[in-house]
Parts: sequence; C-alpha cells; structure tokens
Amino acid sequence: MTTEIRIDGERLWQTLMRSAEIGPGKAGGLRRLVGTDEDKEIRDQFTEWCTEAGLTMSIDQLGNMFARRAGTEDDLPPVTIGSHLDTQYAGGRFDGILGVLAGLEVVRTLNDHAIETRYPIEVINWTNEEGARFSPSMGPSGAFAGVFEADFIANRADDDGFLQGEELERIGYRGPEPVGGRQLDSYFELHIEQGPQLDAERIPLGIVTGGYKSYGMHVDVRGRTAHAGPTPMNERKDALVGASRVVVAVNDIGWKYHNTNGKTTCTRIVAWPNKPGIVSEWAQFSVDCRHPDRDMAAQMMAEIEQAIVEAADKANVEMEIGTRWEFDGANFAPELIDLMRKTAKDIGVPYKEMLSQAGHDAYHIAKVCPATLIFSPCKDGITHNEEEDAELELTEPAVNVLLQAVLARANR
Amino acid sequence: MTTEIRIDGERLWQTLMRSAEIGPGKAGGLRRLVGTDEDKEIRDQFTEWCTEAGLTMSIDQLGNMFARRAGTEDDLPPVTIGSHLDTQYAGGRFDGILGVLAGLEVVRTLNDHAIETRYPIEVINWTNEEGARFSPSMGPSGAFAGVFEADFIANRADDDGFLQGEELERIGYRGPEPVGGRQLDSYFELHIEQGPQLDAERIPLGIVTGGYKSYGMHVDVRGRTAHAGPTPMNERKDALVGASRVVVAVNDIGWKYHNTNGKTTCTRIVAWPNKPGIVSEWAQFSVDCRHPDRDMAAQMMAEIEQAIVEAADKANVEMEIGTRWEFDGANFAPELIDLMRKTAKDIGVPYKEMLSQAGHDAYHIAKVCPATLIFSPCKDGITHNEEEDAELELTEPAVNVLLQAVLARANR
Repeated sequence: MTTEIRIDGERLWQTLMRSAEIGPGKAGGLRRLVGTDEDKEIRDQFTEWCTEAGLTMSIDQLGNMFARRAGTEDDLPPVTIGSHLDTQYAGGRFDGILGVLAGLEVVRTLNDHAIETRYPIEVINWTNEEGARFSPSMGPSGAFAGVFEADFIANRADDDGFLQGEELERIGYRGPEPVGGRQLDSYFELHIEQGPQLDAERIPLGIVTGGYKSYGMHVDVRGRTAHAGPTPMNERKDALVGASRVVVAVNDIGWKYHNTNGKTTCTRIVAWPNKPGIVSEWAQFSVDCRHPDRDMAAQMMAEIEQAIVEAADKANVEMEIGTRWEFDGANFAPELIDLMRKTAKDIGVPYKEMLSQAGHDAYHIAKVCPATLIFSPCKDGITHNEEEDAELELTEPAVNVLLQAVLARANR
Repeated sequence: MTTEIRIDGERLWQTLMRSAEIGPGKAGGLRRLVGTDEDKEIRDQFTEWCTEAGLTMSIDQLGNMFARRAGTEDDLPPVTIGSHLDTQYAGGRFDGILGVLAGLEVVRTLNDHAIETRYPIEVINWTNEEGARFSPSMGPSGAFAGVFEADFIANRADDDGFLQGEELERIGYRGPEPVGGRQLDSYFELHIEQGPQLDAERIPLGIVTGGYKSYGMHVDVRGRTAHAGPTPMNERKDALVGASRVVVAVNDIGWKYHNTNGKTTCTRIVAWPNKPGIVSEWAQFSVDCRHPDRDMAAQMMAEIEQAIVEAADKANVEMEIGTRWEFDGANFAPELIDLMRKTAKDIGVPYKEMLSQAGHDAYHIAKVCPATLIFSPCKDGITHNEEEDAELELTEPAVNVLLQAVLARANR
C-alpha cells in the first residue's frame, strides 16, 4: 500500500546537514544570500541531488528552480512542493531549506518504492524569499504569481548597488525560462513554525488555516545637519531623534497588543551623515506590524501612523511614508487544508491548526493555484538567528504527511 | 607703522571662494574628506598659494602641513597660525578653512608691506580635524601634541576599512617629518563661531576664554536576532530598540539643560543585521554631552549613564560603554588672551568674550605651547551644514586682529 510508505528520516537529515555546510555563519548557523558564491554552491548541490534522483531541472529568469519528476500523464499541470534555500544574514539551517529538501526527500521516497504518479511533481527553490540582500522579500515567487513585474525584481539593488538579476547571472542562475505564466496543479509548502507553540507542546505538525494580518512600510525622515556641539536644542531638526522616537513608540505599541499576540517592530534604521559631531539630516526606518485579527492590526497601524506624526512634531522634522506593503495569507485552499487534516489523521500524526505569523512564498503562490502551508516545530521558536534548531524526531512526521498528501493529490 | 597695516579682504574672500570650488557638496557647501582626491586638490592648491607667497612647505607623517615664513632670528621657535582644510560630509565653506586661509592672508599682507618678523611664522593645515571619515576627530593635531600615538591615528579605518595613513600616502600627503616633538612659540587659531551669538549681535570678534565641558563616548548594545514576525514582544532582545531608547532619553536630557546652554546628542547609530524582517542583535551609538558649567556637565553625563542602564533594562539587552573622551578647552594662554583683548581695543574692533562649544585643534595644541582661539561670526550660527555662510564685512575685523596679534607676538 502506498499509504504505508514513509520517508527516510536519516537521509533527509544528512541532506540538511550537508546544506548546513554551505555558507556557514558565525555560530553554527548560515549566511547564504542570493547571488553570492554560497548561493551558487547550494544551487549546484541541489541540482546534483535532483539530477541523481532523476529529476529534470529548469530555471527561470529570476533564478527560481523547478526540479521535475514526470507523471504518467505528463501533460497535466504539476503538483509542486517548494520553499527557499536562501537565508538571512544571521540565519538558521532549517528556515526554508527544510521545505525544499523535504520535497526532494518526498521524490526520493517515491523513487525508492518505484511509485509513479499521474500528475508530474516539481520541487521548487524560490529565489530570495528572505529579502536579506535584495528587498522586497519573496520577490521572485511574487513575480511568478504576477504580484510584481519580473524586471522590477531583477533590477532590485543591494546596499552596494549590485542588481539581483546581474548577481544571479554572475553565478549562472539567471535561467532562460520566463517567470510564471504556466499552470500549477497545486502548491505544498512545509516550513518550520518560526514560533514557539509546536515545540512547547511537542506537537509535530501545524496546519496553517490562515495568516496574521501583516503591514509594512518605509518611512523617510528629513531634518537638517548641524554641529552637535554649539547648536542649541531648540534649533535642531535631528532626523535620528525623530526616527528613534518612532522606534520606541512602535515598540510600545507592540507591547500594548502583546496579550492578543500583536507585534510591531522597526527593523532597520539608516541615517545620513550619521557621523560623530554632526546632527543627521536624513533617516529612514522600516515598520513591521502584525496581528491575528484584521481589525486590531488596522488599529495598530493607525496608532503607528499617529506616533509618526507626533514624533515628527516633537523632533521638529518631516516624515513621509514611502513604500507600503501588506499580506495576510487569507487564501490558502480549503480543499488542501482538508487534505492535510485527513492525511494527518490517517497516518496518526497529531496536529494543531494555526495562523502563520511570517510571510512565505505560499502566500504569493496561493494566488495562482490551490496552495497549502504546514509547519514543523523549531526549538524554542528561535529563528532568523544562527541558534535556530530542529530535531529529526519532531520533524519527520510533518514530512510524512507532506509525502502522503502530495501522493494523494498527484494520483487523484 | 606696522600697526596700521590691514589685510586685503577681497583677496582673502577670493581665496576662500576658490577653496569652495574644491569638493563641492550638494547645496553650495563642501564635502572634502581626508585622503580623498578632493583633499589632494585643496592641499595642492594650498601648497601653490604658499609657495607663491615664498613659504617653505613641510609635511609630517600624518599629513599635517606647515608653511614657513623665515624670521630674522630663524632659530627661534615659530609663531603659528592654523586650523583645517577638511570638512564634514555635508560641510560648509568656512569651518576650519577660514583659519588656514586667514593665516595665509596674514603672511601675504606682511609680504605686501615687506615686513620681516623676528620669529618665523608658520601657517598650519591640520589633517582630519572633523573626524568625518576617520574617528577620532582632531587626531593628527592630538598626535602632534602627544595626546595620541601617531601610529594609532595613522591606523584608524574608515567605514570601508581604508586606513587614514594609507589614504594620505595614496594622495601623496604622508610626509617625511615626524609628528610633533618640536617647539612652537605660540599657536593662534581663528574659527567661525559655529553658534549664533556673534552674528545675532553683529559683533565681529569672539575672544575665547575657555571651552564648554564636553564628554563623548561610544556605547555597544548586544541583543539577539529574531524574526520580526512571529517572535513575541516578551521574547525579544532588540538592540535597535535599546539604542533608540537612549537616543530619545539623551535628547530629553539635552532639553532639560537647554536653559543653561546644555546640549546632548546621539550623533551616530549603526545596527546589525539592520534588515527588514529581522530584529537586530547589535547596535552602537555615540553620545555627545556639553555644558558651560563643569559640574552640570558631569551631572548630565550621570543622567545619561542612568538612562543607558534603564534603556538596557527596558529593552532586555546589554549595553557597554566603550571608548570615552572629554575636553574642555580650559588651558588657553592668559597672555595670548590678553594680547587679543589689547589688539582688538588698539585697532577698534568690538569683541565679546565667550566659551567655545565645539572642539578645535587649538584644544590639543594648547597642551604644548601658549595657544589662543578667536571666533568670527557665521550666519545664523548654522554650521556642519552646506548652508553655512559668512560675510566679508563681519569676517575681516577678526583677521586684522589676528594679523596684528601675530605680528606683535613675532616681533616681541
């Protein structure tokens, strides 16, 4: 019975640990940024693994990689399993990587048992999910789903002015295929939870039924340079003070909504000239606001915008909200969520239904095909940190649910 | 009578305006950082002017430039006039530059009248007064005065890792002379006030009798990276929030002491990874604290240190105070201050006695010879800003006082 096959947990772990050798960070974690030599190395390694598993590779013009296992009715659109192999600056060994390599393990397991599927299956590595080097995050999966123009994403520059498309070209992964525009049957993504709930309760599977409402924006602050020595306090227009007032206020708003799981963060601040002895004339910061309840998220954003007005007034500077973005993961496919519930019950994996708090490629892909997102536990919920960790025993059950759900979908 | 000679204001202004063409900033100001091509260009131009005026150039290993006019008793130590030709990132056309080019104008005026002096006279351009590219500021004059080791200053790196000594070498201005170790008779520095008082009262001369007490320090903040989405507020160690709390508190302390002319500033903040989507694990900021009263300055610093403790506690991060510095300009030479008063009275220039709020090369040089600092007005007190401005009519009287005081000193 194909419903009795299981993945090879040791093989999956060895594959994850080999990945963890590529782009080592400073404390056992990873720094594997898009378009770097480390990115090339993991892509080459992934290609080698996929080719050994009999998969056919194709790469689109944003470096998204599709490793295809033919179906017995190969003209049908593919059932896909994806996530990302890139990491944060100080990232972990599992965030995203688990989802791609679990897809590989699913295929390897089908190979072990010589199981054919009616629908083709594709394992996908999306470029730059993290947005660590190039902003926005999730750009290439977004372009695949028609959220962004592919050229816009290719032309994003890093802090040193290098363009994402050119850096992909440099490492040989700006492929020939157009971005998007083809039909997928369905999309499955397994990701570590990036929160502490599953680990705390030792539950090996989270079935995501929706997402937190998430808002983001960049804010520019304009003041005036002045000598930090003689310039009286009342003649200053200190952009850094204005930005810092907002950082503090945004943090306070997060605490205010902490009891209902709200979070607000200013993640990034830059100022100019930002030198000793001089008051900065310009600053920019990024705001991130999330809440499970849409109305409360909107309320938090309103409070943040009010805090921006007050901080600008207090610091005698001007502030302007620039780029804004929002996502909510509200459109995962009920049929696939049901398939996940049923599969977990069938093979006896305890699960918990939950909302996703972070953005994932699945949010975008859900716009162009039925998509589902599941979670496995990560130690203490620590992520975007080199101490991010997971254990095989708590990871394997979710991968088996993925295997069986994909198999059911691909043979329906 | 040599007491009746006066400088050529138009010539001084033309020279200043020629300097203002080298390293133009973005709005009529200057960006002329140490060791850049623009620094080389102004040094070449200064050398040309000095050579035309019959001066002999020598350059020390930190790029400090000494342009010497021989005395009739040339073995006597030189009477010196100095300041700096470098600027802030968004600097003005007069800050420092006026002091060096006023020295040149003094020499040119003596030449016009074929006046010899008993003591030699040297016009000095100190390297990196501003500290805009390499920290600390006033490093090369400090090394001349024995406050720093010359090698320490040569090995200071900019934000891109370039070393000050190597960048001076690159532009041909790492000279052969040892740094310091030779006797100066006296040091005269004319600087724009960098505050609004003289301009507001249309008084053309400020005689500096001392300085504000100034403290500075760098503070490191250590937190933990985490995902800005799922990480609950109570599990965060957000280095940027900790740093921002101090920036706001330091600004509030400045306002508290504003009525007695206190100022406090966090001038610079950097964080890592400082990227969207991630809580930063490290931040660093600089603190600047100034007050005319020594006890109150110490009290302000105590409040800042308390604010650091409280901010670290609130943000659940660790903070550590690193490098500290302080200066107070308390040691200007009474005999030279008296000379300035007398000269101003003799030639009928109204003046005001004042404290210096900013640091100047004169603070260091006062440790190794009798030194004095005088101010001329700058428009609205705006400085370290490309709108910094001055007018000839309000500048010329101070340069004439400088001329007559130097002449008196060099012929005593």
